[in-house]
Amino acid sequence: MQTARHVQQLRSSYIREILRAATADGVISLAGGLPAADLFPHALLQEALIKVAGNKQVFQYGETRGYAPLLDHLRVTSDLKTSHGALVTTGSQQGLDLIARTYINPGDHIVLEAPSYLGALQVFTLAQANINTVVQTSNGPALMALEQLFASRSVKLFYAVPDFHNPTGISWSLQTRKDVAKLCQAFNVTLIEDAPYRDLRFSGEHLPLVSSFCPENAMVLRSSSKISAPGLRLGSVTGPEEWIAHLIRVKQTSDLHSSLPMQAVMLEVFTHPEFEAHLRNVRIHYRQRYLALAQAINQHLPPEVSYAEVEGGMFLWLRLAQGDPMEIAKKALEKGVAVVPGDVFYSADDIKSPAIRLNFSYCKPEDLNAAIQLLARVF
Amino acid sequence: MQTARHVQQLRSSYIREILRAATADGVISLAGGLPAADLFPHALLQEALIKVAGNKQVFQYGETRGYAPLLDHLRVTSDLKTSHGALVTTGSQQGLDLIARTYINPGDHIVLEAPSYLGALQVFTLAQANINTVVQTSNGPALMALEQLFASRSVKLFYAVPDFHNPTGISWSLQTRKDVAKLCQAFNVTLIEDAPYRDLRFSGEHLPLVSSFCPENAMVLRSSSKISAPGLRLGSVTGPEEWIAHLIRVKQTSDLHSSLPMQAVMLEVFTHPEFEAHLRNVRIHYRQRYLALAQAINQHLPPEVSYAEVEGGMFLWLRLAQGDPMEIAKKALEKGVAVVPGDVFYSADDIKSPAIRLNFSYCKPEDLNAAIQLLARVF
Repeated sequence: MQTARHVQQLRSSYIREILRAATADGVISLAGGLPAADLFPHALLQEALIKVAGNKQVFQYGETRGYAPLLDHLRVTSDLKTSHGALVTTGSQQGLDLIARTYINPGDHIVLEAPSYLGALQVFTLAQANINTVVQTSNGPALMALEQLFASRSVKLFYAVPDFHNPTGISWSLQTRKDVAKLCQAFNVTLIEDAPYRDLRFSGEHLPLVSSFCPENAMVLRSSSKISAPGLRLGSVTGPEEWIAHLIRVKQTSDLHSSLPMQAVMLEVFTHPEFEAHLRNVRIHYRQRYLALAQAINQHLPPEVSYAEVEGGMFLWLRLAQGDPMEIAKKALEKGVAVVPGDVFYSADDIKSPAIRLNFSYCKPEDLNAAIQLLARVF
Repeated sequence: MQTARHVQQLRSSYIREILRAATADGVISLAGGLPAADLFPHALLQEALIKVAGNKQVFQYGETRGYAPLLDHLRVTSDLKTSHGALVTTGSQQGLDLIARTYINPGDHIVLEAPSYLGALQVFTLAQANINTVVQTSNGPALMALEQLFASRSVKLFYAVPDFHNPTGISWSLQTRKDVAKLCQAFNVTLIEDAPYRDLRFSGEHLPLVSSFCPENAMVLRSSSKISAPGLRLGSVTGPEEWIAHLIRVKQTSDLHSSLPMQAVMLEVFTHPEFEAHLRNVRIHYRQRYLALAQAINQHLPPEVSYAEVEGGMFLWLRLAQGDPMEIAKKALEKGVAVVPGDVFYSADDIKSPAIRLNFSYCKPEDLNAAIQLLARVF
């Protein structure tokens, strides 16, 4: 059976191949986007699963929107306005996919940062959106370029990761947050604020969501994957209720609803008295890992590579003065270290700055150090 | 933000409104498609959840295809050929949606039985398929009409529920199974065999899957919802590996993968020594409920209504000699019993036989009897 034309546009994913190779014995992987399994809140998860096992309410079909007690909790923790709503999704990836399916006609203009989250590139490619990109500065998207894009065509939505961006680790400044919100309001562009790493800040100042400056022009994607455990596959979308209601209709057609026992487990974990301590612990360790990675880069890699410091999240973006990132990633793998060449995070027409993405959440400090020493032999 | 055009084609679901009304206090619901919560394998589920709570492998990101031990189990129980593959989905609804997203271009011809599963109508409407229907006889689809459809246009796929159809309860005869398989082979049409009720046979002879007669032309959707518990949201798609591989690419974009703890729980339940006894118990009770419903209809409803006997599943299709099913459903709700008017199971252009769908899995025999006595007052 012949696949549909929009599926044929999905690029075969080089990152998937490299991730497969990265799991081979003896390879240190800085390639994946995996949180640290040794830091998962196993005791809390175990306690929650055992508790939920006795809850007979979670086994029947449920409401598409989500498990009511979890939704109530999300309303409070997300500080939702009365006119806004929430939807529980199978990971925030599904939230993004539902937004694209519900709101994008083939050919609709959307804007992404360049580079951008690979999963977003795939979602919008599948939706046959007309993908425009705006280059990223150290404070967030280049504002003049963004305004020009918004002014020159009818842009439906701007998808962005303002906190500890994937792949670059960049966080938007407060002023950029306010300026982007104003632009979205002025041009009636919907901001899709993807915030999976937001709770992983380990230095610097906590900044408001961009959407807090333009709540009627924004939807927010949240993920439980980086703060509890990704295997559960739970995330949420919040925004104006009218928009959420349309997402719910499409989600009903997609999968009826997300797993109820998992939603009940998530609520137990989020409301556990030790959850905050768990989060603090993750931040402490991710900071240690980041510092170990940065130190190893400073010590072992040639001075012509550079990186912007990050204040949280899981990634560091190593800029190369020269060389082909694909070649470097292949040679690195031969030496026993997996990294992702930056090119995969750009859409086809983008000008690509040579860089590689390094993940620092998954490996322990000693492995990060060893990986960079191996990588040094490639340069 | 304006929804996409294909979303605007989704009908606002009358059944959702009636299902909401059906949950009101004092209403006996024969409307939903709910399995009996009192027959869920609670002890097995509880044991499985507690066991899985200690399995540290299920909390990290996993493979899109599914949890390897569950896939191995599915291969064996589905008797898969070496050249065929399986994919675990968030309910079989997601499997169907993925098939439509992966293989349907807007305008592609597909065939459904009339009446048909409402969730399938919604999936193919969202995919902008050109929906053709073939009328259902007591043995399955009308074969001449099906052949004419296949011969007169390029049909991509034929979606069908050969075992205990939703909404009619009909099961295809062995001969019809063979004949449909032959037609699919002759015209190179892919059969999408949806089998959520297949394990719920309580009388008559177990028949082979239609796809067993045309394995290279078919994909099979299986659901755990009716044999364990729907809240877990797990199903699967099996078929030629090349086709499954394309579904996996789209599923990766949709939600990365389905919940791993739920997949591990499912495997524990399926392989539990008491699972077969649980299934037998469900069948025994569903048979009792069906017989109670049938007896109440024979006793209390006027002779001009009729129904085809069913050998399993969850539904009975009550054919009306006259009257508007929508009106009857509304009046029934006023009397305190919820049913679904048959019209909602047809696509817009179909000739609709007046009927209402009665669910017999959810209510106990005494409630089914009381419901029919209330319904009798509408006629």
